[in-house]
Amino acid sequence: MSFSSISEYQAHRDELILADRAQRADHKKGQLSELEARADKVVRDVRAFEAATIWTREYQGVPHPFPGMEFLTGRSIIVQTELFKILEKMPKGALLHAHLDATVNVSHVIKLAMKYPAIHVRASTALNASNIGSVLPELLPLPEELRSSAGQVSLTDSKYTPGTWVPFNRARESFDPQLGGPEGFDQWITAAATINPTEAYVTHNTVTKIWQKFQSTFRVNAHMIRYRPLHKEYIREFILSSIADGISYVEPRINFVLGEIRPFISADGLSHVPHREILQDFDEVLNDVKAELKAQGREDEFIGARIIYTTLRFITPENLELHLQECIALKKEFPHLIAGFDLVGDENVLKPLTYYLEPLLKFKEMQKEAGVPEIPFIFHGGETLGDGTEADMNLYDAILLGTKRIGHGFSLVKHPKLIEICKEREIAIEVCPISNEILRLTSSMHMHPLPILLNQGVHVALCSDDPSVFGNMGLTFDYFQVLAASEITGLIQLGEMAKDSIKFSSLEQEGKDRALAIWQKRWEKFLEYVVAEGQRVLAKGSAN
Amino acid sequence: MSFSSISEYQAHRDELILADRAQRADHKKGQLSELEARADKVVRDVRAFEAATIWTREYQGVPHPFPGMEFLTGRSIIVQTELFKILEKMPKGALLHAHLDATVNVSHVIKLAMKYPAIHVRASTALNASNIGSVLPELLPLPEELRSSAGQVSLTDSKYTPGTWVPFNRARESFDPQLGGPEGFDQWITAAATINPTEAYVTHNTVTKIWQKFQSTFRVNAHMIRYRPLHKEYIREFILSSIADGISYVEPRINFVLGEIRPFISADGLSHVPHREILQDFDEVLNDVKAELKAQGREDEFIGARIIYTTLRFITPENLELHLQECIALKKEFPHLIAGFDLVGDENVLKPLTYYLEPLLKFKEMQKEAGVPEIPFIFHGGETLGDGTEADMNLYDAILLGTKRIGHGFSLVKHPKLIEICKEREIAIEVCPISNEILRLTSSMHMHPLPILLNQGVHVALCSDDPSVFGNMGLTFDYFQVLAASEITGLIQLGEMAKDSIKFSSLEQEGKDRALAIWQKRWEKFLEYVVAEGQRVLAKGSAN
Repeated sequence: MSFSSISEYQAHRDELILADRAQRADHKKGQLSELEARADKVVRDVRAFEAATIWTREYQGVPHPFPGMEFLTGRSIIVQTELFKILEKMPKGALLHAHLDATVNVSHVIKLAMKYPAIHVRASTALNASNIGSVLPELLPLPEELRSSAGQVSLTDSKYTPGTWVPFNRARESFDPQLGGPEGFDQWITAAATINPTEAYVTHNTVTKIWQKFQSTFRVNAHMIRYRPLHKEYIREFILSSIADGISYVEPRINFVLGEIRPFISADGLSHVPHREILQDFDEVLNDVKAELKAQGREDEFIGARIIYTTLRFITPENLELHLQECIALKKEFPHLIAGFDLVGDENVLKPLTYYLEPLLKFKEMQKEAGVPEIPFIFHGGETLGDGTEADMNLYDAILLGTKRIGHGFSLVKHPKLIEICKEREIAIEVCPISNEILRLTSSMHMHPLPILLNQGVHVALCSDDPSVFGNMGLTFDYFQVLAASEITGLIQLGEMAKDSIKFSSLEQEGKDRALAIWQKRWEKFLEYVVAEGQRVLAKGSAN
Repeated sequence: MSFSSISEYQAHRDELILADRAQRADHKKGQLSELEARADKVVRDVRAFEAATIWTREYQGVPHPFPGMEFLTGRSIIVQTELFKILEKMPKGALLHAHLDATVNVSHVIKLAMKYPAIHVRASTALNASNIGSVLPELLPLPEELRSSAGQVSLTDSKYTPGTWVPFNRARESFDPQLGGPEGFDQWITAAATINPTEAYVTHNTVTKIWQKFQSTFRVNAHMIRYRPLHKEYIREFILSSIADGISYVEPRINFVLGEIRPFISADGLSHVPHREILQDFDEVLNDVKAELKAQGREDEFIGARIIYTTLRFITPENLELHLQECIALKKEFPHLIAGFDLVGDENVLKPLTYYLEPLLKFKEMQKEAGVPEIPFIFHGGETLGDGTEADMNLYDAILLGTKRIGHGFSLVKHPKLIEICKEREIAIEVCPISNEILRLTSSMHMHPLPILLNQGVHVALCSDDPSVFGNMGLTFDYFQVLAASEITGLIQLGEMAKDSIKFSSLEQEGKDRALAIWQKRWEKFLEYVVAEGQRVLAKGSAN
């Protein structure tokens, strides 16, 4: 190709860039409204302004900050930005990928634990300054009769008998002042239930190692969270905090494992709660929240919630079949609550989907026989750096088995044919940017494959995965990281992802239409806020 | 899609996998010969065996090794593997992306420097244990009359006058035994001219920071390397060491910067060497090497070499035009030596191609007027983590300006239309895996986008970029890293990349045909070696 003039070249260049970006939702949708265009521009200006100011300073413990940097290190800077404050107000649509057990802030969980005398804590040895960093707390709701026999000696007292259960509040109040007293106790619990920068970026800086720490966080508080009365409050807090972040519909994954070591425990601490009763609780909380919102004239802020039934990808195929049956039974009783079925756990070390082929291939037929509405698979797949490993190959099986969406799909970008299929069959990808980075699939947002998916026109919903472990509560942090690391992605693309999160949710068409209409109204309001607020920020910035 | 049986499912699955990989060269080429199939299998077995043995052990200073890990940390393990020893024997085809100033092992450069009394060294202060890690050596060839006035005081003597030139050998021999004596001197030079693991993975662990260290390595020895007599030996060593690694054609990039601060220095140390004389030297060395090989009956091991004329991407457009003119003049005199034109330097901070649009658009016309054979652009582009930054956008301009190949093209995977064009117009990508990793575009080979390019059917040639700085001499290390980090890529794909490196070189068709025919002969021999050697390794392995 040769050009007779610079202007001719520029014309061809503009054409080429458009063609290259033609599959992006934000470019496809053609002309922007004047308000959209202005809001998008303002956000780009604020991003550029803060990239040159807030992100160029030196911070205590952050030697070289940059937008889109490691989340756990950059978090304290992110929350100082006006860009973050703007995104907090954005209507986020739906949260489609979050594991319920990891959705409520640990500080709040501690407050909940303090309300229930049943909750006890123990350690494998008396805690002191040298071992507190390595000894993990165990938490469990005890039945009435065992509580009396529980120890009263502080976990930090050298006379503490290793393994003795101590009432949660007693343990907290009697925590050695040398170790921080009650706050020290809270920090001990928090450190065990979350991932810190040193773990993610130094001591456990590989996918394999960080997964070990990641899984230990669930072992710490799963028992406590699954204490029925606390669990109901937990669900409530998850929904309320999501609404507070601008999320109007949630589709959490809940682990229902038959005969598992971490069952739901009844209020008296004596028995395992049947899973159907957990769904009743979920339904009850849902209706309470909706009623309260309605009473406050806020019903438009929350459309509802549905559950993705999940079990663990290390059980036997026979055992999996039992879970498929239970899932169908629950769908029969709670057709409005069960959204789909999935398997969870580290794809890199646990069983691939092919291991469960026989029962999984039967699932459709089982549903027909039971006469229940369809229960789609909503599989995790390709949450890996592997190229042709079982975890990577799970993508073929997720798609062949008819998955409705793909959880993570991190390695999807390597598969041209699968990308094509995802577009044809409208299979959306649940992308969890911060989760991927903390679990070391990518070192920063700049290495994340999300832009590849967007430029290929694949539908994407941003998700938080395990926010209580990662510290990315709500969806604002994930939206921020995506926006901060690109010069192409702007507010309009974020809006498209929010809309897609509703379009590809498990809501009925009617529910989707309502949710989208409400979202659009809130979006317009948000855009006006963005223009006003953004201009204020920029004016203030240029004044300094 | 629903399946009536497992076998029906498996059949669809196999089909889908084939369709997904259909654009890969190794899958496209259809049936493998029995020898190819066996060699490919053996290599996969050796890779799997060593992944489970050598790569699972703990090593001093390598807490958690894995195949494809950070090169500077994993190098000492890589060289212990049989997989590496096998790849050393592989015929590599052409080396299409290497900057001449960074192609010869520092230890060899030191040996060369010791041969020339003109070479002098100085430091900004007397060296001692506490500052030797931070004070950089400066090296320069001095003219006869200045040598006498050069200092004789050791650089490590507190009486050393900062900035005084000391003869290289004198400085080396008088280096304080407390600092390691002559070996300590060599280590000081080496540390300054290479990147170490701490710099790449700790102190300079971002693209911006590592580029600062990277550029300093060139400042250290560029003057010395460009001393004409030493430079001729340098070229010779580059070619010989390439041949020793199984490379049969090289296309180095050489910086020709008019009025630059780092000119080529004449033997007497007094004047700048005209660039045409450097090409004469190159030609002379080339012919000598060819003659020697012919005399040894080894002429098939080396097809030849051509130069990609490069200048720096911070000069003015007017200045660039002068370089385009010189490049044309050199092409006129050495049509067989000039392969193309490129601009070098950190794309993230220096000028984008658009800055040079006016002169670059004239280049074709200038060549016509001068009546020289075509000089293609062979541009660097997209060597960045940016999404829509100038460095990323360089890809649009490189392609619009008709680049023959793309240097790095790291961000190409984000551009569906550009990938399509690269396939249509057969624009090959010069992928430099180890360079990308050390310069922090990717944290390990598992995060490198190469598999995306291969699966999309883009032509790729693996390259070493700056091996003397990175320690990836030859091409064996880069081939190893690519092979070790994938379960899909095998020996056949490596062979395809080697063939592509010849097909997309600047050789005339006749030269390509000859090179390909010779490569095929060597490849068959290599495959036989692989089968025999691989089986020996596996037998030994299972015996233990």
